[in-house]
Amino acid sequence: MQEIGVGIIGFGTVGAGTYEVLTENSAIIQSRVGVPVRVKKIADLDLETDRGVQVNPEILTTEAMEVIQDPEIHVVVELIGGVTQAKEYILAAMENGKHVVTANKALLAEHGKEIYTKASRCGVEIGFEASVAGGIPILQTLRSGLCANRIKTLMGILNGTSNYILTKMSKEGLPYSRVVQEAVEQGYAEDPPTLDVDGTDAAHKLAVLISLIYGKAVSFKDIYREGIQEITPDDVQFARELGYCIKLLAVCRDLNGQVEARVHPALVPMDHILANVNDVFNAIYVEGDFVGPNLYYGLGAGRRPTGSAVAADIMALARRIASGTKAATPPLGHVSPSDGEVPLLPMDDLVCEYYFRFSALDKPGVLSRIAGVLGEHDISIAWVIQKGREINGSVPVVMMTHEARESNVRKAVSLLDSLEELSGKTMVIRVEK
Amino acid sequence: MQEIGVGIIGFGTVGAGTYEVLTENSAIIQSRVGVPVRVKKIADLDLETDRGVQVNPEILTTEAMEVIQDPEIHVVVELIGGVTQAKEYILAAMENGKHVVTANKALLAEHGKEIYTKASRCGVEIGFEASVAGGIPILQTLRSGLCANRIKTLMGILNGTSNYILTKMSKEGLPYSRVVQEAVEQGYAEDPPTLDVDGTDAAHKLAVLISLIYGKAVSFKDIYREGIQEITPDDVQFARELGYCIKLLAVCRDLNGQVEARVHPALVPMDHILANVNDVFNAIYVEGDFVGPNLYYGLGAGRRPTGSAVAADIMALARRIASGTKAATPPLGHVSPSDGEVPLLPMDDLVCEYYFRFSALDKPGVLSRIAGVLGEHDISIAWVIQKGREINGSVPVVMMTHEARESNVRKAVSLLDSLEELSGKTMVIRVEK
Repeated sequence: MQEIGVGIIGFGTVGAGTYEVLTENSAIIQSRVGVPVRVKKIADLDLETDRGVQVNPEILTTEAMEVIQDPEIHVVVELIGGVTQAKEYILAAMENGKHVVTANKALLAEHGKEIYTKASRCGVEIGFEASVAGGIPILQTLRSGLCANRIKTLMGILNGTSNYILTKMSKEGLPYSRVVQEAVEQGYAEDPPTLDVDGTDAAHKLAVLISLIYGKAVSFKDIYREGIQEITPDDVQFARELGYCIKLLAVCRDLNGQVEARVHPALVPMDHILANVNDVFNAIYVEGDFVGPNLYYGLGAGRRPTGSAVAADIMALARRIASGTKAATPPLGHVSPSDGEVPLLPMDDLVCEYYFRFSALDKPGVLSRIAGVLGEHDISIAWVIQKGREINGSVPVVMMTHEARESNVRKAVSLLDSLEELSGKTMVIRVEK
Repeated sequence: MQEIGVGIIGFGTVGAGTYEVLTENSAIIQSRVGVPVRVKKIADLDLETDRGVQVNPEILTTEAMEVIQDPEIHVVVELIGGVTQAKEYILAAMENGKHVVTANKALLAEHGKEIYTKASRCGVEIGFEASVAGGIPILQTLRSGLCANRIKTLMGILNGTSNYILTKMSKEGLPYSRVVQEAVEQGYAEDPPTLDVDGTDAAHKLAVLISLIYGKAVSFKDIYREGIQEITPDDVQFARELGYCIKLLAVCRDLNGQVEARVHPALVPMDHILANVNDVFNAIYVEGDFVGPNLYYGLGAGRRPTGSAVAADIMALARRIASGTKAATPPLGHVSPSDGEVPLLPMDDLVCEYYFRFSALDKPGVLSRIAGVLGEHDISIAWVIQKGREINGSVPVVMMTHEARESNVRKAVSLLDSLEELSGKTMVIRVEK
């Protein structure tokens, strides 16, 4: 093997970062792989935009199939995103005997099983480290580093944009809409950043993580998703008074038979190590039955960190191609996976602590009405904060509950929202311990 | 391959943890490896002590060679520690065609090259994830996850005992000797915990990490080592007032050509993510040129976390044995390593900021004398704290410097220590930014 040929489909942010790391660090990469790793072709429909990297125009093409069919290319890197065209390219590359590297979490979350099966049938390998948490090698860690453990809990801050918004709301006391607007203006967020702030992106990543923990597919549509759009500066402030911060968390918890899988804003205790993960940083907190609590922290997106992860996958393949070996571990880390899908706990059956913020009209007996309804639904109150500050004619009343059942909380809140003593919808945020 | 046979030499804390994880999680391990992984023999001179695990007495032996020569054993796990006997066993196992897993940082730091060479000659593999930071898979991360990066900085809290002592000194304001005594009594520290508190253990681990970053050996004796024994509650308190905490850090910094390699107490800014790593936890902060800042955090020692790391190495080998493949990546992660040893920066040439605590007798002109000597050695002062509190007849004067050269600092401090206006030795602690 003289050198390993790489073809990139999709020359956006991550494509440019991948090209950059493979060229800028080519000497170090060659020393670690044993042979040179060279980008042979890059396909993108838009060859005009300046990507900020110098590329020999001869390797650029608008035809993805030129990459897929190039006999000098061993590894095809799919970086166009989306689930339709990307899937076609990946399957075609595999049929052509190419190994594949992708950062496409949506595709893997929704069609992972088909893709892993195809890779196995075609005798090729697939790397997707960059699909979750950018430069943090969390997939490798679950697949190999922690592989002797039963993973009991995983809690991730997996979306940098949401974390940036929540951090800024917390540090500067600004409302959601204002922070989003600034983030878009400064290029930290897409316009609009819907999939980032509504929990979809984090849920895609959570699906990939869960499939690695259990070695089988998870039904993406059954992962509970709730975004950060309704969080107010009041919530951030009340949470702080109670000793918490608010994070968009992706949670997987093993309940011995069923698995919690959910993405939503959550109150995280200030002294939990996840509480210190701020700005655009990502982190994954994992608890294994032997390893205990672990944290993996880094930049979850961006050209260079994600390029680092794509390049690591390319290098793993290159090392194996160059040494004539094959991967001893399948994509999902289980050589003998059990059939079917990961059995998810219905969200109604979730049991956790809750934060409620009610907007109470200043009338006698309001607290008693609220407490009464909660009590009737088996929800017991641990903390109450009521302060004089009136907002739009009503007073915020904040309660923290002991452990309660999600179905009961929904019923109670729906009843409470119809009371004439309360104005506006009740804010409900789950609490992680 | 029906099953993978494992033999353990050394049935202490980590040996028992390894046995425990391989048996307790045998189903999950089999699903991830594809075939059963079974402990066939355990050798230890002491077969009387209760290890807290149930073992079939028939697999116990006092003869290490019985493990090494057993034809049913594919992987020999060395967990006796020390550098003499352990090395003999490992080399003998390799000569017998066995793959080896070890947690022996001292052996690898001091004789790594010989052992890796032997493995390569014998056509066997060696795993040593458990030698650094217990359950945190940092070696795998450097070897694979971050392999596309030039590692610019690594800063590790690599010794749990020291971190526990410093955390307790900080939280409770207690003196070093008192905390050590309590830690020994409670079983958190060995009696005496010399290698933990004097920096040797952390330096062994740093040597292993550096050899993975650069793909070659590092001269262990040239790694600078300084322990935490001289740190006083005063230092902890002054550091806090200045916005820092004190940690025993293992530092590797790439200076383009030379490499800083040093273990010593350091002032770490309170807002650095390493400052929140407390008690017996370990953490490794890594900055790569593409991935940016990353942190890996978890329990660095103990029966179950270290057992998790040993088992991960065993499983990696088992996966390869079962699938008939070989490792595509050598132990130090470089297929084409360059010759020689990592070129270390002489400690005299280190440039950093410093914290000084002088014990000044309450005489006129003391500050001026100190400042004068520092100025003559090109050391400029950024902060001074002098407070009235007298300790044993002298007053502590604390200074933080701008960047200065270690050789100048040593000369200046040696001069200052001879001044009659100062009593006792000057405390010098380096500052990490």
